Amino acid sequence: MEVVILAAGQGKRMRSVLPKVLQPIAGKPMLAHVLAAARALEASRICVVYGHGGEVVRERLDATDLAWARQEPQLGTGHAVQQALPHLSSQGMALVLYGDVPLIGVATLQRLVGAAGVASLGLLTVTLDNPTGYGRIVRDEAGRVLRIVEDKDATDAQRAIREVNTGILVAPVECLRNWLGRIGNDNAQGEYYLTDIIGMAVAEGVEIVTVQPDAVAETLGVNSKPQLAELERLHQSMIARRLMDDGVTLIDPARIDVRGELRCGRDVEIDINCVFEGSVVLGDGVRIGANCVIRDTVIGAGTRVAPFSHLDNTLMGEDCIIGPYARTRPGTRLGKDVHVGNFVEIKNSTVADHSKANHLAYVGDADIGQRVNIGAGTITCNYDGVNKYRTVIEDDVFIGSDTQLVAPVRVGRGATLGAGTTLTKDAPAEQLTVSRAKQLSIAGWKKPVKNK
Amino acid sequence: MEVVILAAGQGKRMRSVLPKVLQPIAGKPMLAHVLAAARALEASRICVVYGHGGEVVRERLDATDLAWARQEPQLGTGHAVQQALPHLSSQGMALVLYGDVPLIGVATLQRLVGAAGVASLGLLTVTLDNPTGYGRIVRDEAGRVLRIVEDKDATDAQRAIREVNTGILVAPVECLRNWLGRIGNDNAQGEYYLTDIIGMAVAEGVEIVTVQPDAVAETLGVNSKPQLAELERLHQSMIARRLMDDGVTLIDPARIDVRGELRCGRDVEIDINCVFEGSVVLGDGVRIGANCVIRDTVIGAGTRVAPFSHLDNTLMGEDCIIGPYARTRPGTRLGKDVHVGNFVEIKNSTVADHSKANHLAYVGDADIGQRVNIGAGTITCNYDGVNKYRTVIEDDVFIGSDTQLVAPVRVGRGATLGAGTTLTKDAPAEQLTVSRAKQLSIAGWKKPVKNK
Amino acid sequence: MEVVILAAGQGKRMRSVLPKVLQPIAGKPMLAHVLAAARALEASRICVVYGHGGEVVRERLDATDLAWARQEPQLGTGHAVQQALPHLSSQGMALVLYGDVPLIGVATLQRLVGAAGVASLGLLTVTLDNPTGYGRIVRDEAGRVLRIVEDKDATDAQRAIREVNTGILVAPVECLRNWLGRIGNDNAQGEYYLTDIIGMAVAEGVEIVTVQPDAVAETLGVNSKPQLAELERLHQSMIARRLMDDGVTLIDPARIDVRGELRCGRDVEIDINCVFEGSVVLGDGVRIGANCVIRDTVIGAGTRVAPFSHLDNTLMGEDCIIGPYARTRPGTRLGKDVHVGNFVEIKNSTVADHSKANHLAYVGDADIGQRVNIGAGTITCNYDGVNKYRTVIEDDVFIGSDTQLVAPVRVGRGATLGAGTTLTKDAPAEQLTVSRAKQLSIAGWKKPVKNK
Repeated sequence: MEVVILAAGQGKRMRSVLPKVLQPIAGKPMLAHVLAAARALEASRICVVYGHGGEVVRERLDATDLAWARQEPQLGTGHAVQQALPHLSSQGMALVLYGDVPLIGVATLQRLVGAAGVASLGLLTVTLDNPTGYGRIVRDEAGRVLRIVEDKDATDAQRAIREVNTGILVAPVECLRNWLGRIGNDNAQGEYYLTDIIGMAVAEGVEIVTVQPDAVAETLGVNSKPQLAELERLHQSMIARRLMDDGVTLIDPARIDVRGELRCGRDVEIDINCVFEGSVVLGDGVRIGANCVIRDTVIGAGTRVAPFSHLDNTLMGEDCIIGPYARTRPGTRLGKDVHVGNFVEIKNSTVADHSKANHLAYVGDADIGQRVNIGAGTITCNYDGVNKYRTVIEDDVFIGSDTQLVAPVRVGRGATLGAGTTLTKDAPAEQLTVSRAKQLSIAGWKKPVKNK
Repeated sequence: MEVVILAAGQGKRMRSVLPKVLQPIAGKPMLAHVLAAARALEASRICVVYGHGGEVVRERLDATDLAWARQEPQLGTGHAVQQALPHLSSQGMALVLYGDVPLIGVATLQRLVGAAGVASLGLLTVTLDNPTGYGRIVRDEAGRVLRIVEDKDATDAQRAIREVNTGILVAPVECLRNWLGRIGNDNAQGEYYLTDIIGMAVAEGVEIVTVQPDAVAETLGVNSKPQLAELERLHQSMIARRLMDDGVTLIDPARIDVRGELRCGRDVEIDINCVFEGSVVLGDGVRIGANCVIRDTVIGAGTRVAPFSHLDNTLMGEDCIIGPYARTRPGTRLGKDVHVGNFVEIKNSTVADHSKANHLAYVGDADIGQRVNIGAGTITCNYDGVNKYRTVIEDDVFIGSDTQLVAPVRVGRGATLGAGTTLTKDAPAEQLTVSRAKQLSIAGWKKPVKNK
Repeated sequence: MEVVILAAGQGKRMRSVLPKVLQPIAGKPMLAHVLAAARALEASRICVVYGHGGEVVRERLDATDLAWARQEPQLGTGHAVQQALPHLSSQGMALVLYGDVPLIGVATLQRLVGAAGVASLGLLTVTLDNPTGYGRIVRDEAGRVLRIVEDKDATDAQRAIREVNTGILVAPVECLRNWLGRIGNDNAQGEYYLTDIIGMAVAEGVEIVTVQPDAVAETLGVNSKPQLAELERLHQSMIARRLMDDGVTLIDPARIDVRGELRCGRDVEIDINCVFEGSVVLGDGVRIGANCVIRDTVIGAGTRVAPFSHLDNTLMGEDCIIGPYARTRPGTRLGKDVHVGNFVEIKNSTVADHSKANHLAYVGDADIGQRVNIGAGTITCNYDGVNKYRTVIEDDVFIGSDTQLVAPVRVGRGATLGAGTTLTKDAPAEQLTVSRAKQLSIAGWKKPVKNK
């Protein structure tokens, strides 16, 4: 089976410099969603039909398993599929998908392809509460598809038909080649419509089998930003539903955004308004507080993430206590029972088990041992303006508040740094190291007075 | 009146290690909501029927006013109520509630109990737009309840009935004892259904009175995480409605979560996406900015809380200015007109009237007087790795930026601490205290160059 | 054309000390929305009828183009308009609006006024799915308005009429004067109803033209906080729709709040849960992350704002990278390619092109040159308790971490400040300046032990 994806539409109503099929749903171009579906079907070939200005589409999504067919000028869907024909083998079936119908489901397509077999025309139809504007599926008394009637051409009786054409179909390549060579453009738009092949199939006695999608949303197309937003929400709603069916507790299914893949263990609870991007894994019993943003991160079982945390490319062990207002940046690896508190930033650093940085700190390019206490206001001075250096803090160290560790520097096991220390040389193990001026009080000192 | 609460269901569809009735609505186990309703009715006894694996339910929610009846094996609702009978007095009425029907309202139950009196069977029924799946209430021409017909046994005419059984009922204990001893399990599931007592009551001429709930949501049960989320939102929506009826301005009633009790004075305004947990009291004219999380906190009249603030176990005076990004932790007590600004954490401390900590500071275990100015970057070093100590700052003190106060330490009234001071000894009143190294510039200094 | 706005209602159901018409929609009093519509019509005069306790309305919204008429006692809408008559010229048309019907649209009113011309009575009617409670528009067979029948007085046939009166009308001032002098108060409330003039107009053969609003929401009135919230959401939903139609990508149109004016260039993307207040301008390609609050700010093309940022009265150049957790306060002006990172506060400062303050810093009252690196924990000590002073940092400076700049102070071009420096005097250009105590380690030091 081969797949043709029509992706040449400009989408002027999107009012964007980005071609329509690159507009994102869940952070990923619409066309990428359709490509993922096509790949999940294990198509032997995928041909994308692109159009004027579509080179950026090709650049953005090109891959070795894709063929690209340029459609120019753009003379309708029938014409578009015709451009793909040279890329298809003569035998077998071709499935036609649309780059701006992004939520099409693999299970639906499998049913469609399965129903069509190797000789029929398989048509995806959908029954709508309000079919206005769509092509109606006209059937004979035996239920066989006779034709598709466009809304504007329909009689009153036909207008009452609620089953409509989605445009998605699968047919023998040989038939497509034959039919598409014969369709005309004798219509108001002067375009060649793929739909016209239905009549030809009927005339030739080719069986037309129809299948309905698992959800109406799978068949919705996007032509404007309001429609893009509508599909975004439908998509998110389906993801939320799936998470809940798998046992995840969502405090508000209308306030979660998953842009990528979110895998959850048992008894995970996600509070309101969280955003997950890329690949996120949450272990058993993980609880994510309100308003967190989490990207490409793995969180160990039992860890609690408090509100307003922003985690990116982080590996986090079990039973950690994170946030509120914790920010971990790429390259952060936390062990078990690590505490990262409010207004703490960690970047490209490892923090071993039972260590804590609970308040106002910047830990960058550091290797921190076990049971270390990083005091409030601690800063690793990892950057001298041109180079970055690492800080090493061994096990059982106590870093006093407001300390600066000027990297490269090492703090030996069990050392203590006094509050306010600027550490420019290694601190020996077990000792107290400070850099501190004498405390003086000035008795005759006059307070500042208000300037005139 | 006595109450029986059926709480033995396992809830496999929840896909959780937690028994179903412990799954939370508004942060509280569903069963706890039902218990609260039962207690509000001033029941003389409350008997909870629990099941296999339900010991954790008992451990979690046990109280002196509860009796616990174990149901094992679980042979249906009728069998469940039977397990409770030994705990009930022979006289009086028994009300049957469900641990997985958490939103049942006290007013509804009072009407039901009142209508039933001391000799009737009171049945809570509800009229649904779509009654599919529910047992229909079949009445005679005089409107008397004849029986309940299960959906699968219903004729077409009966299926059209929109009044359905909720399962909640109240009946004389004596009758229950009699009827439950006689119900059979001759059905597909082999279970003893509580519903069967309706037919017995009709046969014996016991009057059946029906009452409808104040809201349909009160009768909804939870068997899955999607249903749990649906009831969470319905519950929150009812809370939001009540707050608005009381005069609170909610910028978006669909984006507020109250998990506990929120009491508001006059002219309180709550912006989008706030979460309230435990017991929160907001005085007249308080305004809460977007995205705040507030737990067990009392906020004085006129105080403004800016977005992204996280307040926990805090007592806050009038006319304070809090946030954005302010975090107060348990044991924080703020006077009047206190300012707590961005990236400031306060814990277990008192801050007296007119004092300010406006930027990037950690105040822990401190007692701060009036009109004190805590400079940006100030840190109380309250922890030496094993012990915690208090910092005392008297009235009218000015703490320069980036100062560390190494507790135990006291700053005398009217003192000034210079920027960057590490204060290890008490600072005398009215004087300027500093610990500062001499400023040096190194003329021949070479800037770092990029490593190769 | 002149406009009369009825704004005397107390709104007891709002349960507020604020008069009803001052209750806010999108952060602005309802009456201010109506005044804006009236002004957009270029009315020659606008007369606001206010009532008991309404002085605060007048104080809050008074302007030179407004006349104020006091209505006391309040004897109905007809009586209210009568109070405005002395302020109106005898010729021309008067349009009657309502201070608690805030979403009325200018386009709708223009159509109404246009349809009415100079001699007819123009009545805004609306067709509702559920007209219960509203006055029905009764027409003759030719479709001419005959009268308005109140819900309680309507026959069953009249109750089925779905076209209802909105109360908004325009009529010749001369007619109003005539009719209002003759309406009675012989009704249950003892009030003079403006609606009664319709019958008089019909009787006198004055033509009644009706117009329907662009959206039903335009005609909804507010009497309670739930209704206020409902209109807030309808208003926000219309704003979101308009933004999307203009090409803005909104990840969730139900989670954006615009309280003022938001102007967007091409290909702007706004993530969930953002709030815009006052006048905000976003250049081409700007992306706003989740949960941002932005007020009176201009953001240059290509700038990215990460989640949890709070921007206020800020001017921001192109291609800046802002947040997460960045806070800019009034008077902040950033050049191009400026980076402001997490837990950084900037106030009343300029930061020139390519400069960075990426972590935990307070920059207040400072002028910062190009290519400056502000280290983590840097604090401008701009305030001595009574006066504020400026800090000047010239081009190409490197400020080490945890440095305090005690203003007034200047750092010369190309200078470097060592980590932990307290800068009290100017730092010369190109040199390294530090204030640092010697680092000492104490070998015999004993760690603290747990207090008993």
